Amino acid sequence: MNNGMRAQDLFGIDLPILQAPMAGAQDAAMALAVSEAGGLGALPCAMLSAEALQKQLAWLTARTSKPYNLNFFCHTSPAVDEQKELAWRASLAAYFREFNIDPMQIPEGPGRQPFNHEVADLVEPFRPPVVSFHFGLPAADLLARVKGWGSLVMASATTVEEARWLEAHGADVIIAQGVEAGGHRGLFLDTDINTQVGTFALLPQVVRAVKVPVVAAGGIADAAGIRAALQLGAVAAQLGTAFLLCDESLITPLHRAALQQPAGEVTALTNLFTGRPARGIVNRLMREQGPMTRRVPEFPLATTAITALRKAAESQGSSDFSPLWAGQNVTGCREISAAALTRLLAEALSATEE
Amino acid sequence: MNNGMRAQDLFGIDLPILQAPMAGAQDAAMALAVSEAGGLGALPCAMLSAEALQKQLAWLTARTSKPYNLNFFCHTSPAVDEQKELAWRASLAAYFREFNIDPMQIPEGPGRQPFNHEVADLVEPFRPPVVSFHFGLPAADLLARVKGWGSLVMASATTVEEARWLEAHGADVIIAQGVEAGGHRGLFLDTDINTQVGTFALLPQVVRAVKVPVVAAGGIADAAGIRAALQLGAVAAQLGTAFLLCDESLITPLHRAALQQPAGEVTALTNLFTGRPARGIVNRLMREQGPMTRRVPEFPLATTAITALRKAAESQGSSDFSPLWAGQNVTGCREISAAALTRLLAEALSATEE
Repeated sequence: MNNGMRAQDLFGIDLPILQAPMAGAQDAAMALAVSEAGGLGALPCAMLSAEALQKQLAWLTARTSKPYNLNFFCHTSPAVDEQKELAWRASLAAYFREFNIDPMQIPEGPGRQPFNHEVADLVEPFRPPVVSFHFGLPAADLLARVKGWGSLVMASATTVEEARWLEAHGADVIIAQGVEAGGHRGLFLDTDINTQVGTFALLPQVVRAVKVPVVAAGGIADAAGIRAALQLGAVAAQLGTAFLLCDESLITPLHRAALQQPAGEVTALTNLFTGRPARGIVNRLMREQGPMTRRVPEFPLATTAITALRKAAESQGSSDFSPLWAGQNVTGCREISAAALTRLLAEALSATEE
Repeated sequence: MNNGMRAQDLFGIDLPILQAPMAGAQDAAMALAVSEAGGLGALPCAMLSAEALQKQLAWLTARTSKPYNLNFFCHTSPAVDEQKELAWRASLAAYFREFNIDPMQIPEGPGRQPFNHEVADLVEPFRPPVVSFHFGLPAADLLARVKGWGSLVMASATTVEEARWLEAHGADVIIAQGVEAGGHRGLFLDTDINTQVGTFALLPQVVRAVKVPVVAAGGIADAAGIRAALQLGAVAAQLGTAFLLCDESLITPLHRAALQQPAGEVTALTNLFTGRPARGIVNRLMREQGPMTRRVPEFPLATTAITALRKAAESQGSSDFSPLWAGQNVTGCREISAAALTRLLAEALSATEE
């Protein structure tokens, strides 16, 4: 089981707890809080400009000598398909009329840059203890740079096949991301969400299939969940949703409210917001247009059209068009600091209960 | 956690192990083997004629005094929608041509009768220790009869909302059926499979939401899985897939072979075979027509057209049109007797490992 490895030895942290990187929902402040409390904090970098990344990294490393995790996406940036983009905007026409938006005058949405050599140049001097990737791994030369400067490399697998691929291509640690997880699915070999696997089935099968340590993600909300994940062979558990109501979370008040309403327990995988399947609380756009559709432009281009609607709706106090990312278990959310939440989890873990 | 209840006290069995009822895949022989070995064996009754049910029950009760579980479906039998049936057969026309089948001359498929008073009349003299239901609960008067003669009543919940509903309507025990589970989803309140929940998230939330004991199902294949389920608050774990290769299993050689091939680890929810979403190994029909479609006749009417194709294909050694029911974790399957598998699980459970 977990190859005799402990999170303490693998990551140099006190607790078997990783904070999931959540692009758009948090910055280095949350990473700092979790790392200082004994977990592995994470800084999501996919939506940061070079300048912002430099600033966040400098801020974080000036404040802690504890290990932390830098997370990057490694998708292939697609070319714009004008036909598809126009058809997509046409299919959203009624919404644009509702908010008096000219669909031909929409500014580009927030970009999501894949990891590349320019980003690597910027990161290298910091030699981050852990670097993690979503949507596979970067090209071999890029990955070699990251490993060369000493970072431990983690990557997400959503199937046993992806786990085997990641190990074969150089991942040091594999995150078994069960279908319960909030935000973007890390899938990269098969894009069919119908075959995505729940944590209870995925985790032990990945542990059997690979020799590298495995981190569990998806549906884990508390100490009992962490213990169950360790029981199934994980070296540590990665929690994201549980941190969404913490003081350091940067999600909107509308997103916070959605997480605390009874409807917050109903989520689905949707590709409407970015072009890739991601789990969020079911809202009007998902009910009316999906939650999955083939009409959507490729990731991350889909973001543009929806962001215009999102901004207009949010300005009227509505989250009908907002990506309300959340996993399938919101019961671990607490309106306290991320440090306090990490300590609470640690206390519950060390309590001798069975 | 699990309200202080133990499987031993609740069911009168030695082990926290329930064998999942698998209609079409097993009969009383498997129930007997598991019950005699200290678990709770189950007899699936949904596809049995009155005569067969009587015979199976007499056979089982003559051979054991241990507790067992009788499982029934409680769907509403739909009226045939001629239009839909014709359109469905038309959309399968190429397959019918491939196998030289006249789509207008297909005998009716295997029926699935919901639990009713006639069945209750037949069951009552046996006073089965446990009766479980899939797709909700039967009408109040029927449920009152079952509880009145002393059976413990279990029912499957696929969402927290369904668990609350089942408790409010009289279920004594709730099975939290995570999306990993093989065979038919028990869903009955919301038919949207996009919002179905993984075991890791569903189980602890159901345990929090209801006061009755909760059994975990979905993705559990071995002792570590059972322990993890208990850790998350379950009073016991229900395993189905793990028993599919046992000597007592009645699945076809083609189904057995599919479970043992690498592709056997890739399953999806599909409504193509019966009209209701159920998890099976991905095969040609699922790849080409779904796995989910709105064109399919209502459960269980969809069975008729597909059964004709299934029989023709199977006679040629192909499982392209067979429902290859399986959960997302086939690693627990063993080609031994169900009694031996139950004892193996018991031994691994009692071993002092952590």
